[in-house]
Amino acid sequence: MNQLELTELLKKAFAEDIGMGDLTTNAIFPDSKLGKGTYTAKADGIVAGLQIIRTGYTLLDPDAKVTFHKQDGDTVKRGDTIAEVKASVRALLTGERVILNLIQHLGGIATATQEVIILLNDDSISVTDTRKTLPGLRSLQKYAVRSGGGSNHRFRLDDGVMIKDNHIKAAGSITKAVERVRAEIGHMVKIEVETESKHQVQEAIKAGVDVIMLDNRTPDEVKELTAIIPDNIIVEVSGGITPDTINGYKDCGADVISLGWLTHSVKALDISFNLK
Amino acid sequence: MNQLELTELLKKAFAEDIGMGDLTTNAIFPDSKLGKGTYTAKADGIVAGLQIIRTGYTLLDPDAKVTFHKQDGDTVKRGDTIAEVKASVRALLTGERVILNLIQHLGGIATATQEVIILLNDDSISVTDTRKTLPGLRSLQKYAVRSGGGSNHRFRLDDGVMIKDNHIKAAGSITKAVERVRAEIGHMVKIEVETESKHQVQEAIKAGVDVIMLDNRTPDEVKELTAIIPDNIIVEVSGGITPDTINGYKDCGADVISLGWLTHSVKALDISFNLK
Amino acid sequence: MNQLELTELLKKAFAEDIGMGDLTTNAIFPDSKLGKGTYTAKADGIVAGLQIIRTGYTLLDPDAKVTFHKQDGDTVKRGDTIAEVKASVRALLTGERVILNLIQHLGGIATATQEVIILLNDDSISVTDTRKTLPGLRSLQKYAVRSGGGSNHRFRLDDGVMIKDNHIKAAGSITKAVERVRAEIGHMVKIEVETESKHQVQEAIKAGVDVIMLDNRTPDEVKELTAIIPDNIIVEVSGGITPDTINGYKDCGADVISLGWLTHSVKALDISFNLK
Amino acid sequence: MNQLELTELLKKAFAEDIGMGDLTTNAIFPDSKLGKGTYTAKADGIVAGLQIIRTGYTLLDPDAKVTFHKQDGDTVKRGDTIAEVKASVRALLTGERVILNLIQHLGGIATATQEVIILLNDDSISVTDTRKTLPGLRSLQKYAVRSGGGSNHRFRLDDGVMIKDNHIKAAGSITKAVERVRAEIGHMVKIEVETESKHQVQEAIKAGVDVIMLDNRTPDEVKELTAIIPDNIIVEVSGGITPDTINGYKDCGADVISLGWLTHSVKALDISFNLK
Amino acid sequence: MNQLELTELLKKAFAEDIGMGDLTTNAIFPDSKLGKGTYTAKADGIVAGLQIIRTGYTLLDPDAKVTFHKQDGDTVKRGDTIAEVKASVRALLTGERVILNLIQHLGGIATATQEVIILLNDDSISVTDTRKTLPGLRSLQKYAVRSGGGSNHRFRLDDGVMIKDNHIKAAGSITKAVERVRAEIGHMVKIEVETESKHQVQEAIKAGVDVIMLDNRTPDEVKELTAIIPDNIIVEVSGGITPDTINGYKDCGADVISLGWLTHSVKALDISFNLK
Amino acid sequence: MNQLELTELLKKAFAEDIGMGDLTTNAIFPDSKLGKGTYTAKADGIVAGLQIIRTGYTLLDPDAKVTFHKQDGDTVKRGDTIAEVKASVRALLTGERVILNLIQHLGGIATATQEVIILLNDDSISVTDTRKTLPGLRSLQKYAVRSGGGSNHRFRLDDGVMIKDNHIKAAGSITKAVERVRAEIGHMVKIEVETESKHQVQEAIKAGVDVIMLDNRTPDEVKELTAIIPDNIIVEVSGGITPDTINGYKDCGADVISLGWLTHSVKALDISFNLK
Repeated sequence: MNQLELTELLKKAFAEDIGMGDLTTNAIFPDSKLGKGTYTAKADGIVAGLQIIRTGYTLLDPDAKVTFHKQDGDTVKRGDTIAEVKASVRALLTGERVILNLIQHLGGIATATQEVIILLNDDSISVTDTRKTLPGLRSLQKYAVRSGGGSNHRFRLDDGVMIKDNHIKAAGSITKAVERVRAEIGHMVKIEVETESKHQVQEAIKAGVDVIMLDNRTPDEVKELTAIIPDNIIVEVSGGITPDTINGYKDCGADVISLGWLTHSVKALDISFNLK
Repeated sequence: MNQLELTELLKKAFAEDIGMGDLTTNAIFPDSKLGKGTYTAKADGIVAGLQIIRTGYTLLDPDAKVTFHKQDGDTVKRGDTIAEVKASVRALLTGERVILNLIQHLGGIATATQEVIILLNDDSISVTDTRKTLPGLRSLQKYAVRSGGGSNHRFRLDDGVMIKDNHIKAAGSITKAVERVRAEIGHMVKIEVETESKHQVQEAIKAGVDVIMLDNRTPDEVKELTAIIPDNIIVEVSGGITPDTINGYKDCGADVISLGWLTHSVKALDISFNLK
Repeated sequence: MNQLELTELLKKAFAEDIGMGDLTTNAIFPDSKLGKGTYTAKADGIVAGLQIIRTGYTLLDPDAKVTFHKQDGDTVKRGDTIAEVKASVRALLTGERVILNLIQHLGGIATATQEVIILLNDDSISVTDTRKTLPGLRSLQKYAVRSGGGSNHRFRLDDGVMIKDNHIKAAGSITKAVERVRAEIGHMVKIEVETESKHQVQEAIKAGVDVIMLDNRTPDEVKELTAIIPDNIIVEVSGGITPDTINGYKDCGADVISLGWLTHSVKALDISFNLK
Repeated sequence: MNQLELTELLKKAFAEDIGMGDLTTNAIFPDSKLGKGTYTAKADGIVAGLQIIRTGYTLLDPDAKVTFHKQDGDTVKRGDTIAEVKASVRALLTGERVILNLIQHLGGIATATQEVIILLNDDSISVTDTRKTLPGLRSLQKYAVRSGGGSNHRFRLDDGVMIKDNHIKAAGSITKAVERVRAEIGHMVKIEVETESKHQVQEAIKAGVDVIMLDNRTPDEVKELTAIIPDNIIVEVSGGITPDTINGYKDCGADVISLGWLTHSVKALDISFNLK
Repeated sequence: MNQLELTELLKKAFAEDIGMGDLTTNAIFPDSKLGKGTYTAKADGIVAGLQIIRTGYTLLDPDAKVTFHKQDGDTVKRGDTIAEVKASVRALLTGERVILNLIQHLGGIATATQEVIILLNDDSISVTDTRKTLPGLRSLQKYAVRSGGGSNHRFRLDDGVMIKDNHIKAAGSITKAVERVRAEIGHMVKIEVETESKHQVQEAIKAGVDVIMLDNRTPDEVKELTAIIPDNIIVEVSGGITPDTINGYKDCGADVISLGWLTHSVKALDISFNLK
Repeated sequence: MNQLELTELLKKAFAEDIGMGDLTTNAIFPDSKLGKGTYTAKADGIVAGLQIIRTGYTLLDPDAKVTFHKQDGDTVKRGDTIAEVKASVRALLTGERVILNLIQHLGGIATATQEVIILLNDDSISVTDTRKTLPGLRSLQKYAVRSGGGSNHRFRLDDGVMIKDNHIKAAGSITKAVERVRAEIGHMVKIEVETESKHQVQEAIKAGVDVIMLDNRTPDEVKELTAIIPDNIIVEVSGGITPDTINGYKDCGADVISLGWLTHSVKALDISFNLK
């Protein structure tokens, strides 16, 4: 996680949640009261984004101390202690919800990523995310995918080319679309083409693209198509793949399977905070 | 939705997604090329946040025109047209992902909210959200809950008092906690107390709180407790209630059931964008 | 005061005042020169917002040390030392004006609030502020009202309902306006209605509102109306009340008197800074 | 007023006041309902910052139309129409408070400035403000001073030099302080020195400063000192001057009288908004 | 250019330059005075960033009209009209400097890029920029490089891998560095290695990197090394190449020559603005 | 340098350069790895902005330690150590480029400023910058001019008056333009007039301006005109002066020579960073 970016995000998150002050906590606890609390897993999963606990509490109380019992990417079992915090009780209680909201979300992504990888059961295929992320949270969500053992697709529209059907239609053909793009982009940018037929795959190979996406293909179709794609071209399979269907793609010959589902439909990992 | 807030959020979302430019689209389409596109439901559900389509495209192309076929809160069936857009093709394609990410997320919340309300099948009980929202998106997420027929709990820590077990322990009793809080807050702020026993409920009634939360109670326990709570005190039931369990709370006598699940574990509503 | 919010406000205030640098101070004092200074009351009053001194100087010199002789809400007499600061002389002189501007303004609000409370001389009535605050300063101004012994009305348009004459006219009646609002708001939001006649007060009682505002009423009118309002409904008196007239409302039976004057027409509390 | 700056300030002011939405107005008025309203003076004074009405409403409703009956700097009498607005009723009511808070504050400054100028009754002396302004509002406050017929002192610490007693002590003498400053500043920056004795005035004259401030001097003392100051040096009188004392400085020979009071202790000009 | 990003940059640039207002222009021209002006080349070169003229003036005067006589990437001769503007005279004069500062800088980059391409005189080699750009201006500077016929290297540290000597030393070898990186990055990211010897080039080839940089090599050394690098690996030449030396690299066999000089030492293209 | 402003600028610069993370460095170096590095001059010149090294690294690693061997304004020779840094290797490598980009740019400005001063060889004439700076960097660029021995012209359009030909034409004459301006501005603002003829110079003298600019004049013309300008009016020479022509202005009698070239066409000072 980019620490400067995380700090800015947490400042905004606290502003959104706290408003003009935590009426309840401020009325009951004096500013000087110190306390301890524990973040504990309430479900099995993979944790991600734990630095949020330290950065978050430090913003609310510069003297906060956080001891981690788990690291990002670690497996947790229900009941495991994740981290212990010493800080003012005001900081502990006022900051709790924002911190939980974030680490539960990121833990949910990491857990889902790992589940999918285990279900796929094929180390030769990377599981990757998409741009189907939530505004303001892309960097953290993609970090959580990595924490769960996955890898990242494009970060933005400017760090990779993805030629889709609308681009192909407008350019006239994959060949022409690749030509136009190649004339504009720098030498560090890869070109991926979304294909919907064997013919398109063949054209993409000739056009010398870096990555061919096979969109909405069954495992058997993928096997047939990967057989004709040279090794130096990366093959990505995409389109509506879920935990229910992913194991079918084991040994399909693709290099990458991307799932929008990893970040657009996240089930939070249950984590609780308890004041001691 | 607060239009000024939405505009700022969309500016940041586009900056996050576009970076220095949409390499693919800019290489293939000239700036002057106009086009049309359609947002279509790919699943049944409730739509929310459609203004995002107009505000988003207008930011990318001030001449964009959006025609809505559905309004926030409307039911959509798979295949229904949600909105049609005329704009530069660059705007249509560059803006597509950010807009879909948001309206799919908000549609997912509205749909889940309505499902829960239907499952509960008790108009005398409001279904409400919590503060378990994602940083930067609370205002939109709570709007989507309303679009789905739900209502909103606190927006922030400053617009309502919620006295929880840690506050009670620190103050010594519910009575003392309520006293301390009442000495600090203004006359427009309601006080809710989280209770874990019949004894606590009785103490909260005496303390004259506005809302009593029954935490982690079975439907039968709720019925027993609501029987002793006067009508002028609102009863909220909370704690791990899901679609699987909510119907049990029909006729339980509570006024409000709150579900963190509505916003912390959202399944996106499937919506697609197609260029014509 | 919300410390994160205060830090951001002070950063902007220093940027506004310092611009590209304090030409005078930077030319005369080397960066390494340390000094001491004292904030001293030049008039009698109540201080508020003293944390601004520490947060402000720490932004300009991370090694600044501030010793407080007074706390927020304390009474000061002309000549009393409020705080002592050790920091670089550049920080001491460059930061002086922004810090004084803020603590003089907040001290002015706290002082006026307390004066009004003393003039009213009726502990059963809260003195409260309004939304008549200055842009960007609402949170601090409302904090100063609390420091002076007052309490806070709504923070924003989203944390309480206030039905005014325009709303009533548009809805058709108080009854209809309350119905429409109740259908939209969450269970933590109170409803206040502004009334201008006995008839309206009676309608508001029937509608079951939480707070009735008696607008522009003489003390005698207030007494007559409070007599018919049940105890569980809060009565707020508002409208042009000033220090000259407030004592008339002693024993009027209201729960709350609100004064826009507390924050819209502030006389700064005179405080000076002296380098030793 | 700098229009870009004003727009940003109003966006932040609306965010502060509206939060997640105007619960009352949104529940009662549909988005499509149009209306008219009028800003009317409720007291005699000078108006300033009227552009805030147009810019503010246009932010909330791009189709808002504002007709001005008064211009900045105009005198208004109680009952005078200042401006008429057509916009959605939601915009009219939601935006009312922020707009009033600002124009009442700025009108208060303009009115006070003009009152002081009339009381002084000496056209050869400019009435000017100071840096005793409220954070975030300096540009608007100084604009209001100009609207009231006053002029502006320094905008920031970087656009003029003001050598005060601490600077003089540290440098050793006025002469040395001026030398040090002159070595650092550009040719467009004026140097002012705060003097507390005839000796200091004489030294400042020799040092060739642009402006001499006579701090905390009676009218007679000012007359005596201005007599020895050459015409090409501007004389500023400052220090605790109020409407009660300013007329004494008529014909004192100074060029400028500065009053912190103009902006640090503002009495709002009473203006009301009425929906038709 | 990303239009939303440009708008934000121009807002900040105007705030920086205008401050509380253009004292001179506001004193002399009434707000209502309209005028026309022309941007004219005062030197031969390539223009870039002309949209800045329209976006800039539209921010200052929403009714401004700009007619372009040149497009980005066009050659201009001294005396050529670049654009004509109709707007309020206040906008024309107040906005002139910020707009000139930007288009002169970007024109300077585009002109230098084209000069270098002409000097190189080898279409098989791309001329590309580096990350040696000025804070806040990278996106515009890289756009100007493209306008001048060049192409772009990495936009950021997150959109491409560049393994330099420190990375190689820390990892132990190029092979190990590539392995570690490959384990972390997504499938859309290219890997470039900076090499300083034939041995390193050979190791990089074996490691299967996408791009090999030959650092600080003479044209003859480049020829020798490109002879052993397979065609599917891109060869970048870098290190202190200037207009004086670039022609020597004609026919050297490299694919890309990168020059930090294009953006770190820019000579502004002379452009003037004249009011008619 | 204004430290608060510098910190904000560096945060934005790192966000621009780092994006979602330094892929290369993060893959190769663990977060815990510490290192040392040195900033070394690779060319002769004047350094400026060295505080950027400390502030920059402290943002990336709060425990970073920087030891300076040179101070702003010092002369460096090729090979001189400028500063040594101890920090995490990730911080050292990730921060290197942003820091170099800034200090090379500022060093280039300081070096050029000093070169021009030496070429001019006339201590009675100040060398000053203009408003021809890069957006977002004005404060730093003007600081660098001071580090190189130059002085600063206006910071903004609000801290000095500059009456140019368009203003004169619109007002009717220099006399009228000065009158209009004088009626609006405060007593701390100087007035400069751009003149193009002896007649205009004479009119400006009569109008009592503070500064007369002689635009595009030869040294001989300047001598002739300065002879008729009284000593109390500052004379600025401007217009296309470069290192090639500046020595001609030695002994010309002007007080100030301004060169846009100092900041609009900067050649970076070569500085390198090496990890030990």
